[in-house]
Amino acid sequence: MFKGIYTPIVTPFTQEETIDYGKMKHNLERWGKTPLDGIVVLGSNGEFAYQTSEEKLKLVDFVINNFNRDKKVIVGTGCESTRETTYLCREAAALGADAVLVLPPHYYKGSMKETVLYEHYMHVAEASPVPVMIYNMPGNTGINLPVSLVSRLSAHPNIAGIKDTSGNIVQLSELIRDTAEGFSVFAGNAGYLLPALSVGAAGATLALANILPEDCCRMVELFNQGNMEECRELQLRMLEINFLVTGKLGIPALKAALDMLGYQGGMPKRPLLPLSEDERQIVKNVLEKYGI
Amino acid sequence: MFKGIYTPIVTPFTQEETIDYGKMKHNLERWGKTPLDGIVVLGSNGEFAYQTSEEKLKLVDFVINNFNRDKKVIVGTGCESTRETTYLCREAAALGADAVLVLPPHYYKGSMKETVLYEHYMHVAEASPVPVMIYNMPGNTGINLPVSLVSRLSAHPNIAGIKDTSGNIVQLSELIRDTAEGFSVFAGNAGYLLPALSVGAAGATLALANILPEDCCRMVELFNQGNMEECRELQLRMLEINFLVTGKLGIPALKAALDMLGYQGGMPKRPLLPLSEDERQIVKNVLEKYGI
Amino acid sequence: MFKGIYTPIVTPFTQEETIDYGKMKHNLERWGKTPLDGIVVLGSNGEFAYQTSEEKLKLVDFVINNFNRDKKVIVGTGCESTRETTYLCREAAALGADAVLVLPPHYYKGSMKETVLYEHYMHVAEASPVPVMIYNMPGNTGINLPVSLVSRLSAHPNIAGIKDTSGNIVQLSELIRDTAEGFSVFAGNAGYLLPALSVGAAGATLALANILPEDCCRMVELFNQGNMEECRELQLRMLEINFLVTGKLGIPALKAALDMLGYQGGMPKRPLLPLSEDERQIVKNVLEKYGI
Amino acid sequence: MFKGIYTPIVTPFTQEETIDYGKMKHNLERWGKTPLDGIVVLGSNGEFAYQTSEEKLKLVDFVINNFNRDKKVIVGTGCESTRETTYLCREAAALGADAVLVLPPHYYKGSMKETVLYEHYMHVAEASPVPVMIYNMPGNTGINLPVSLVSRLSAHPNIAGIKDTSGNIVQLSELIRDTAEGFSVFAGNAGYLLPALSVGAAGATLALANILPEDCCRMVELFNQGNMEECRELQLRMLEINFLVTGKLGIPALKAALDMLGYQGGMPKRPLLPLSEDERQIVKNVLEKYGI
Repeated sequence: MFKGIYTPIVTPFTQEETIDYGKMKHNLERWGKTPLDGIVVLGSNGEFAYQTSEEKLKLVDFVINNFNRDKKVIVGTGCESTRETTYLCREAAALGADAVLVLPPHYYKGSMKETVLYEHYMHVAEASPVPVMIYNMPGNTGINLPVSLVSRLSAHPNIAGIKDTSGNIVQLSELIRDTAEGFSVFAGNAGYLLPALSVGAAGATLALANILPEDCCRMVELFNQGNMEECRELQLRMLEINFLVTGKLGIPALKAALDMLGYQGGMPKRPLLPLSEDERQIVKNVLEKYGI
Repeated sequence: MFKGIYTPIVTPFTQEETIDYGKMKHNLERWGKTPLDGIVVLGSNGEFAYQTSEEKLKLVDFVINNFNRDKKVIVGTGCESTRETTYLCREAAALGADAVLVLPPHYYKGSMKETVLYEHYMHVAEASPVPVMIYNMPGNTGINLPVSLVSRLSAHPNIAGIKDTSGNIVQLSELIRDTAEGFSVFAGNAGYLLPALSVGAAGATLALANILPEDCCRMVELFNQGNMEECRELQLRMLEINFLVTGKLGIPALKAALDMLGYQGGMPKRPLLPLSEDERQIVKNVLEKYGI
Repeated sequence: MFKGIYTPIVTPFTQEETIDYGKMKHNLERWGKTPLDGIVVLGSNGEFAYQTSEEKLKLVDFVINNFNRDKKVIVGTGCESTRETTYLCREAAALGADAVLVLPPHYYKGSMKETVLYEHYMHVAEASPVPVMIYNMPGNTGINLPVSLVSRLSAHPNIAGIKDTSGNIVQLSELIRDTAEGFSVFAGNAGYLLPALSVGAAGATLALANILPEDCCRMVELFNQGNMEECRELQLRMLEINFLVTGKLGIPALKAALDMLGYQGGMPKRPLLPLSEDERQIVKNVLEKYGI
Repeated sequence: MFKGIYTPIVTPFTQEETIDYGKMKHNLERWGKTPLDGIVVLGSNGEFAYQTSEEKLKLVDFVINNFNRDKKVIVGTGCESTRETTYLCREAAALGADAVLVLPPHYYKGSMKETVLYEHYMHVAEASPVPVMIYNMPGNTGINLPVSLVSRLSAHPNIAGIKDTSGNIVQLSELIRDTAEGFSVFAGNAGYLLPALSVGAAGATLALANILPEDCCRMVELFNQGNMEECRELQLRMLEINFLVTGKLGIPALKAALDMLGYQGGMPKRPLLPLSEDERQIVKNVLEKYGI
C-alpha cells in the first residue's frame, strides 16, 4: 500500500530544450536525502506532455538509477491511446518503476464516458507489470473521474490507488469511503493536505514538495501526533507559496524557486516561458515571507 | 463572535402554499432542545426566495418569539436590491434578530464586479443595526465572492463573519488566513465539516442539522476533544444522507426526512414539488442505513 | 404570432431610487415613433429584479397608458415562486398587456429539473389570460432551458414563443426545428441577429434597440429584401456597441448611451452604480465610432 | 486565400489498431470525386491524438499521394510542445501539404496565457514552410483563443486563417471583423454553417462532410445564389445527423455512418470503442430520416 509524501519532480531542460541530466542528478541526490517517501517522474510538473515516449523512457532509466534505492519511484505513463499507455507501463516496469501513475485519455472529452474509461483502465491494469495509480487531474484534463468509476476500478488487484487533484474535499472523502480496503487515496495538491489527512487520505503527491519536502513531511508527522494546532498553522502558511508555484505562475515559478533554494530547476520547455524578472521577484518575496 | 453549529431551518408550507405555523412551532420547540447554537431563518433551505418581504417579516417575528431564547437567531435578508436588503436588515433587527445573513445580489452576474459588491455590503453593514454575516453560495447564485473582497469587508466592525458554501476548502482556508481577528468563518455544508474544522473554521451552518442536530454538534465536540478517529468516522457516514437532502433531491427530501424523524417538514412551495413515492423510499433507506 | 423587433425598455430611476416617470414618458413617446414592433417592460434591462410586485404593476400600468397603442407591450412576470408569477400574469393582463415574458425560477438550480420547469410553465400558461413567451436567459439565471422542454411546452395553445438569449445559434436552430407551427422563436441579443434571421427566427428582443431601434429594424428589412451584403455590414458594425451596453458595462452603460442620444436613461438602482467618467467616455467613443 | 468546404477525414484502423491504408485509399478516391475544396488529415476526427509523429508522417505521405491533386490537403500538426509542432510542420510541408492546421498547446491550461500562445504561434509561423491555419477547438482543448490574440496573429503573413469550432457565432463574427484582409475565417462544425456564411465566413471544415460532402458544398452554393429558403431548410435538416456524429456518439458514429454510405470507416482506436448494435441502429435511423 502506498502512503506518505511523494513529489512529482520537475524536469530541468537546457536552453536547447533537451533534458539537463546534470541538474536532474543534483536534484535527485538532494531529494534522496529528505524524508520524502518517493517521487513521481513524468507527472504534470515533470512536463511529461512535452516529451516523446523515447525521451520519457530514457529519463525514467536515469532517474531510477540515480535516486535513493530506499525510496519509491512512480512513473507517469498516461497517454491518449490505450496502446501507448500500456507500452509505457511495460517499459517503465522493466526499468524498475515501483508503480505507474495513469492520467485518463481526455482529448475527446465528449466520448470519455464511464464505460470507455473503465475499459481503458482495466486494460491498462491487466497489462501493467506494476501497480497502477489513477491520476485524476480535472484542471488539466477537463475530465473529472466519477467516484463510482474509481470505486469499481479499486476492486482490481493491480489498481492500487488514486491521486486526486480535483480539489473537491467531499469527493476525496467519498473516494476514501467507497474504494476497496488497501486502496490508497492521495491528495494531489498541498493546498488541502491537512483537510485530506483529516478525512483519512493515505498520503499526498505534492508539487510543493519539490521545494519544501521537509515541511510537507512534517505536516504528516504533526497530524499523526495529534498536534492539530501546529499542523493547521503550517497548512495556512503554505497556501501562498503553494498557489504561486502550482497555480498562478505554474511550472516556471516552481523551477525558479528550486534555483533559489539550492536545487537546479533549469529551463521550462516551450511553449512554457521562463519567468520575467518581475515574476522572479514575486517568487523571491513569497519565499522570504514563508521564512526560507 | 459567532461559533458552533447553526441550522438554516426549513419553512413548512400547507397544501395552499401558506406558511404552516403549527408545524413551524413544533419544529422550533424541538430544535430548541438540541445542542444547536442557533438557527438561521430565511436561509436557502427556508425557501426565502419564494416569500415576499411581508411574509418574511411575519415569519421572522414568529420564529423569534417561539424559539429557545438562549440560542441565537440569524435572519436571511439578502435581496437583489440594496434598498430592500437594508430594509429587511432593519426590520429583522427590530424584531430581535441576533444577526443577518446577507446573500449577494446576483441576477446581473456580469455587473457584480468586486467594487459593486463591496459598495453593496458596506452600505448594508452601515445600515444594519445588528451584525452582518456574508453568505457565499455560488451553487445557487452563480457568483463566488473572492477572498480579497471578503478580506476587505471583514475589517468593517459590523461585518461579523461569512458562511461559505462554495465547497472549496482551499478558499475556506484562505478566508481564515486573510480575514480580521474575530471574524467568523463558517462552513456552509456538512459534507466538509471536519475538513473545515481542521483548518480553523469557527463553526458551520448546516442544512443537515435540521434533521441531525445532535450528530452535527457531536462532530464539533469530537474534534475539540482531539478524537479524530471517531470524528472522521462520523464525517464519512454523514456524506450520503447529506448529499441526498442538500444535493441530489434537495429541500423536498429534507422536508420528507424531517417528517420521518418526528419533525414536521410540511409541503415545499411551487415550483418545488413534493417527493414521489420512489424518492421517499430512497430517503427512508438512506436514513435507515445511517442508523436512525 | 409575435414577430419583428422588440426592445426590453430600461427603467429610469431618480437619485432616490424611485422610478422616474417623467423620463419614462419621454422615452415611451420617442420609442412609439420608431419602427419597433413593440416593447418589453420589466425585462432584464428594465431592472425587474430590483422592484417589488407593487412597484412593477404601477409601472406596467403607466407604460401601457403612455405608449403607442398600435404597438405591442409584453410584460416580464417571471418570479421565483409559481404563485407570484401567476399573480403577476393575471394583473398584467388586466392592465392590458399583450403577452407576458416568463423567466424560469432558478435560485434552487439543482432542483430545477425538466419536470419541475415543465409543471411550472404549464401552470403559468393555464393561469395567464394572455399568451406566454418563455424567456431563456442562462447568462443571468445559470439555467439553460433544454430544447426538449421548450418543444413540449410549445404545444400548449397559450405558450406563444421564446426569447432565447443563450447565444447558442445551434440551439436556436433546433428550437425553430422542434417547436410547434406558429410558435415564435426570438433572438435575445443583437450580437447574433443576422445569424438568427438566417435560420428562421421570427424576431428579436434586443436591449440594443433601446438606443438603435431604427438600425435593428433596418436589419430585418435588409434581410427580408435579400440584401445580405448590407445586412452583414450592419451586423458587424453593431457588435462593438452592443457588447458594450449588454456585456462589458451593462445596464448603466445602456442608460448613459440613452442620455447621449436624446433619450433619458436616468439612474440605475443599487447595487448597480452609474458609470464612472472614464466609462462614459468609452461609451461616447464607441457611439461616435459607430456613426452617431 | 482558403475558402469553401473541407472535411477532416477519419483514419480507418484495423482490428489490430494499425492504420488501414486500403480503406483510406478507397475513401480518398471517393472524396476526390466530390465537390469538396480539400481535406484535413490528422484533424480531431482523424484521431491525431492517438498517433505518434512517425505514424502521422507516414499517413500524411500516403494521403497526399493518393488524393485528387486538384484539391488541397491541410495537415494537422499541433502538439503540446512548440518543438514537436514545428518539426511536424516542416515535415508535412516537405511531403507536399498545402497548409498546416495548428491546435494550441493546452495541457497546462493555467499557463496558456495570451503571451505564451502568441509566442508559440509566431514561432510556428516563422518555422513553417507552408501557411498556418489556427485551430480553435475549446470543446476538446478546454481553451478558447481570444479574438484579440487571433487578430494580432492574423497580421503575420504566414498565418492564413482560423478554424473556429467554439460554436460562438458572435465570436466568429468578431474574428471576421478584426482579422487582417485575406485572413480566412472557417466555421468548424456544420451545425452553424449557414449562420457562419451569413456573417461572412470564407468556408468551413466539417466532420459532417466526411459523409455528406455534396450537401455541405450545396449549402455554400445555395447561399451564394441567395437561395436562403432552401439553404435554411437544408441547414435545419442537417442538425440531427450532424449532432449524432460530431456530438452525441462522436467518431465511432461517424465511422459507422461512413460504412453505411459506401465509404469505409474502419475501427476506431482505443480507448474509443466501436458502436454497440443499438447505437448503430440509431445512426441508421437518423440517416434514413435525413433521406439517404
